[in-house]
Amino acid sequence: MIRFESDYSEGCIPEILTALQKTNTEQTPGYGMDVHCENARDLIKKACKAPKADVHFLVGGTQANVTVIAALLKPYQGAICPESGHINVHETGALEATGHKCLNLPSKDGKISAKQVEEAILLQKNDASHEHIVQPGLVYISFPTETGVLYSKKELIALSKVCRKYHIPLFVDGARMGYGLASKKNDLTLEDFAKYTDVFYIGGTKVGALFGEAVVIPNKQYQENFRYNMKQRGGMLAKGRLLGIQFEELFKQNRYFKISKQAAECAELLAEALEKKGYKFAYEPQTNQLFPIMSNKKIEELRKHFAFLTFGVIDKDHSIVRFVTSFLTTKENVKKLIKEL
Amino acid sequence: MIRFESDYSEGCIPEILTALQKTNTEQTPGYGMDVHCENARDLIKKACKAPKADVHFLVGGTQANVTVIAALLKPYQGAICPESGHINVHETGALEATGHKCLNLPSKDGKISAKQVEEAILLQKNDASHEHIVQPGLVYISFPTETGVLYSKKELIALSKVCRKYHIPLFVDGARMGYGLASKKNDLTLEDFAKYTDVFYIGGTKVGALFGEAVVIPNKQYQENFRYNMKQRGGMLAKGRLLGIQFEELFKQNRYFKISKQAAECAELLAEALEKKGYKFAYEPQTNQLFPIMSNKKIEELRKHFAFLTFGVIDKDHSIVRFVTSFLTTKENVKKLIKEL
Amino acid sequence: MIRFESDYSEGCIPEILTALQKTNTEQTPGYGMDVHCENARDLIKKACKAPKADVHFLVGGTQANVTVIAALLKPYQGAICPESGHINVHETGALEATGHKCLNLPSKDGKISAKQVEEAILLQKNDASHEHIVQPGLVYISFPTETGVLYSKKELIALSKVCRKYHIPLFVDGARMGYGLASKKNDLTLEDFAKYTDVFYIGGTKVGALFGEAVVIPNKQYQENFRYNMKQRGGMLAKGRLLGIQFEELFKQNRYFKISKQAAECAELLAEALEKKGYKFAYEPQTNQLFPIMSNKKIEELRKHFAFLTFGVIDKDHSIVRFVTSFLTTKENVKKLIKEL
Amino acid sequence: MIRFESDYSEGCIPEILTALQKTNTEQTPGYGMDVHCENARDLIKKACKAPKADVHFLVGGTQANVTVIAALLKPYQGAICPESGHINVHETGALEATGHKCLNLPSKDGKISAKQVEEAILLQKNDASHEHIVQPGLVYISFPTETGVLYSKKELIALSKVCRKYHIPLFVDGARMGYGLASKKNDLTLEDFAKYTDVFYIGGTKVGALFGEAVVIPNKQYQENFRYNMKQRGGMLAKGRLLGIQFEELFKQNRYFKISKQAAECAELLAEALEKKGYKFAYEPQTNQLFPIMSNKKIEELRKHFAFLTFGVIDKDHSIVRFVTSFLTTKENVKKLIKEL
Repeated sequence: MIRFESDYSEGCIPEILTALQKTNTEQTPGYGMDVHCENARDLIKKACKAPKADVHFLVGGTQANVTVIAALLKPYQGAICPESGHINVHETGALEATGHKCLNLPSKDGKISAKQVEEAILLQKNDASHEHIVQPGLVYISFPTETGVLYSKKELIALSKVCRKYHIPLFVDGARMGYGLASKKNDLTLEDFAKYTDVFYIGGTKVGALFGEAVVIPNKQYQENFRYNMKQRGGMLAKGRLLGIQFEELFKQNRYFKISKQAAECAELLAEALEKKGYKFAYEPQTNQLFPIMSNKKIEELRKHFAFLTFGVIDKDHSIVRFVTSFLTTKENVKKLIKEL
Repeated sequence: MIRFESDYSEGCIPEILTALQKTNTEQTPGYGMDVHCENARDLIKKACKAPKADVHFLVGGTQANVTVIAALLKPYQGAICPESGHINVHETGALEATGHKCLNLPSKDGKISAKQVEEAILLQKNDASHEHIVQPGLVYISFPTETGVLYSKKELIALSKVCRKYHIPLFVDGARMGYGLASKKNDLTLEDFAKYTDVFYIGGTKVGALFGEAVVIPNKQYQENFRYNMKQRGGMLAKGRLLGIQFEELFKQNRYFKISKQAAECAELLAEALEKKGYKFAYEPQTNQLFPIMSNKKIEELRKHFAFLTFGVIDKDHSIVRFVTSFLTTKENVKKLIKEL
Repeated sequence: MIRFESDYSEGCIPEILTALQKTNTEQTPGYGMDVHCENARDLIKKACKAPKADVHFLVGGTQANVTVIAALLKPYQGAICPESGHINVHETGALEATGHKCLNLPSKDGKISAKQVEEAILLQKNDASHEHIVQPGLVYISFPTETGVLYSKKELIALSKVCRKYHIPLFVDGARMGYGLASKKNDLTLEDFAKYTDVFYIGGTKVGALFGEAVVIPNKQYQENFRYNMKQRGGMLAKGRLLGIQFEELFKQNRYFKISKQAAECAELLAEALEKKGYKFAYEPQTNQLFPIMSNKKIEELRKHFAFLTFGVIDKDHSIVRFVTSFLTTKENVKKLIKEL
Repeated sequence: MIRFESDYSEGCIPEILTALQKTNTEQTPGYGMDVHCENARDLIKKACKAPKADVHFLVGGTQANVTVIAALLKPYQGAICPESGHINVHETGALEATGHKCLNLPSKDGKISAKQVEEAILLQKNDASHEHIVQPGLVYISFPTETGVLYSKKELIALSKVCRKYHIPLFVDGARMGYGLASKKNDLTLEDFAKYTDVFYIGGTKVGALFGEAVVIPNKQYQENFRYNMKQRGGMLAKGRLLGIQFEELFKQNRYFKISKQAAECAELLAEALEKKGYKFAYEPQTNQLFPIMSNKKIEELRKHFAFLTFGVIDKDHSIVRFVTSFLTTKENVKKLIKEL
């Protein structure tokens, strides 16, 4: 059985295991104040060309989303997000549990546009009863989206402009940031995210680490006392160095980009093969998640040797499936899958 | 420099690193539904002689406290705890952030008694304005306490009786559970905790693991849908198997108890030496945390070769210090410290 | 200027002012424990033919919605509601501020069907990732809806059946309950609400009182300690008797129904005239709120002598307006409006 | 039976009833945007000599406390308060329900000093683990306190200085503000509160109104979007004019001060008589609440003709009782009580 089910079903890159071994008996202060975290923060700031940014490490994505958003919003504000946004559909109301509403905008591919955001802001602002309506206080987007789609540089800049016009922070969930950056269809860099957003995070859990998300706060206005929020939301790891060690290894020698590139190339190989064989896609194939539409017969056949998810139903004979490549996927295995298509 | 600063300044037992290495390329389902978590759950239930208990794995202590307590309380209820309870003093209001008040009881050594608890319950219940007062809805204790002190079996049973009399769950924070159980002054077992409490957790972070706390819910009434709470509070680890693997290794071959025993013996060796040399203790020395009172001159002298915390001030010439042993402390190093006392 | 703007722009029925005057120097216990509240509770239980129901008085609608829903939900549950539901759009996120998500269903007229509710429940329940999705824990509907539309007895019973099938409470926001019951298109009674729902409230603010909503809890399971929730949410009025006195006066001699009837008749008179003159309605005219579509020219003309809201835009020449009748509207004034149509 | 039980057991001053009658059929906009609220705001700003202050009307004290404090704090901050503070002991955890901790300071008479506040701020600030401790974000005091005691001008200025030094707002619960200001032992004015605090409220419920508290925000920094908070916390009254009308009547012709003066004089008459007869007081008699210590025999005797609360126990034969005067208390009735002492 060859698996294309998810990008978090294995462990981590071997360098991390080696580093954990090597540092195991080191004695360090807790809570992210150790030298490994310090190094990792420096490596990330360099990668973002953002020497004045703050960098914090959290264990997982839901924790990162909730901690950041709750830290940035006033009590009567909510987070504008696409209706398919992870915070809206797959976090068991974690954001609402901190007191804040998801302000959903319709979206076909998981993206929202600057125009949509501005309209939503103005709709509330200009309503005679605006004080009775949750005020948009932040814009949440994912790069790439839950359906593997990318924002272009032009789109990100447009969102950034609207947010700055209305003094609302722009926050990017980068749980799969690496795979987005590595796509040949991408024109954005970490430097762009540091320049055009107020807070974003670089996902480790799905991109080479055992766990961990690196929250980057380029905007000085949102840096103060962030660690209090981390502790309050249960996100301050006692042996914080585990996060430092992992991000050190990921950002040494550009490893984060190299392993993402490999996953991207595997996905591109597969996407091209699918296209050549005439398969249609539910969402444009851009990153490590591919959503081809297949006949149920073909799906059944493939399941004999390959593991993957059914994502949705097209009609009684056809479904959307999801193939995911990760930092551990090999081209060899992709070729085996292509052969059976 | 030999360090007695804390029990979370190093990594983990070597068996865990080996297991992480060995399982790294295994593909497993996420979120704690893998075979390692399953095995670990079984091992823990056996260790607790509680086949019908539920076991869940969370990453850290604050997360465990908040997730459990918020799951058990009604909105208008609070958690009875000693005033020095971790939830009250060292979690940046994480419990209040879920909407609940800490109902503090005075305590000299971090323990509270059944009598105190019953009085607090009756005080609220019998107040003419009881509807204007937060209702006690849970009792939170730590075993051992923040100051290293143990509840006796008699004391635990008494607390349990009061809680059951008033239909209030008893919850035990066992961040250092191993060190408590391993103390020669202890008369409690995991089986007792499963019998006399409603929820408790077995700390991994401070006792041999890289991270992780195993929440045990022996009381059926509180088992339903606990995983929803975990997800909502940001505590459901994507690669949940990391927790499973660690607790598997900790509970195989009684390792959890063996490594705790070693730390306990180191502490006992040190405590006896301190007593023999005439040092007084701020709190009775019972577990891996010792709080002797020393002259500031002596403290300064010791700091040349040993790292440890100053915990409080007695007078202008004397302070309380804290020596902590852990699963990685060696008797050799303890003897070096004793020599300098 | 004759006003058809809202049903809360005036004071109250004269009997309430007389009663306030008469009781002003009476000395009573606070917080709703006085004899007037007791009498009002009895009158309401009789009107609902629900002797075992609990009745509580709150000051306003948002307070009533939040207090009830937060009392009934578990932390990881949300409230199913129509997307136009007041809790979702016009309470500044008051429900989210208590930690709970609105689970919106599409709706054209503010109503949701039993079928929609069952589908939403099953969609979450049967999702492989159901633990990552907010669990439906309550169904919220308004009678009448924000757009003046009624549920039929058949529809209410169907909703009730689904809710009971899945052990989820059904809660009815009755801010305009009186006007709903008084409509000639209505086939429901207070007795039906007591029978088929778990909690509902009878609006006073918009139906004859200065302020006040009477929360009725027919389902024993949700009665316990409700007053704690009231106090915690800031809804326990010190001079609670003010609420008792008002509901006493409203429910004496069937006044609540009589004053509602008058408003309903005024609305029916107006609706028939509008229909006769060929106006279309954005929502079926059923209660005291009418939503005819008019040319902007006509609207401008009417505004010279009448006050009313513009509710929405149809095209560049036509808009939806809202005419509201209340317990103080006179047929004479309605006739003046009809004359100008 | 003559009653000295509380200051909220009757209705209101007659002028308010007359005004309600007179304005009953006026049509006004809702939610506090009417002309009566506007007038009342102006009268209050004049009384405070604070033309740039914002004034908002809320229904009750718990609502006012929670709405203000939750609006001013960041998520990881708590409210410093005396341990007997209303927010800490008599609001069913309403503040915690918004996510914030009460940071209690010991107090014998319900007051806290500038020195205590500064120590508490520094203790957290200078703790090596300060990020693990709730940060003081506001100081809450009551004027007068729950036990009827007053802050002097000197004490208020000292508190104000400490708060400003550490950039923490000072908030005064003035549920009984009128009675405090009217005491002959008082040296503070509304102008002082506007000058030395950041937010305070002027209680109506206990001082002449049916209900209502006027929140005054002299500090510009805390004025923005306060109405959003009011709506979110369920505190925006639909027929807001009811609050406007009441505060208009209270602040016309200095009525608020006159009626408070009468209650103060009744209390002073009673206090002097008690002193003369040799009764000791549990708290210094300064305002409309008196706490003499009496033999249980005497208490029993008095209860035949007078109603009052037992507040605490001194020994098996003696108790603390509470006599409260209000804006409706007559000197005649006080004299009857004195006669029986």
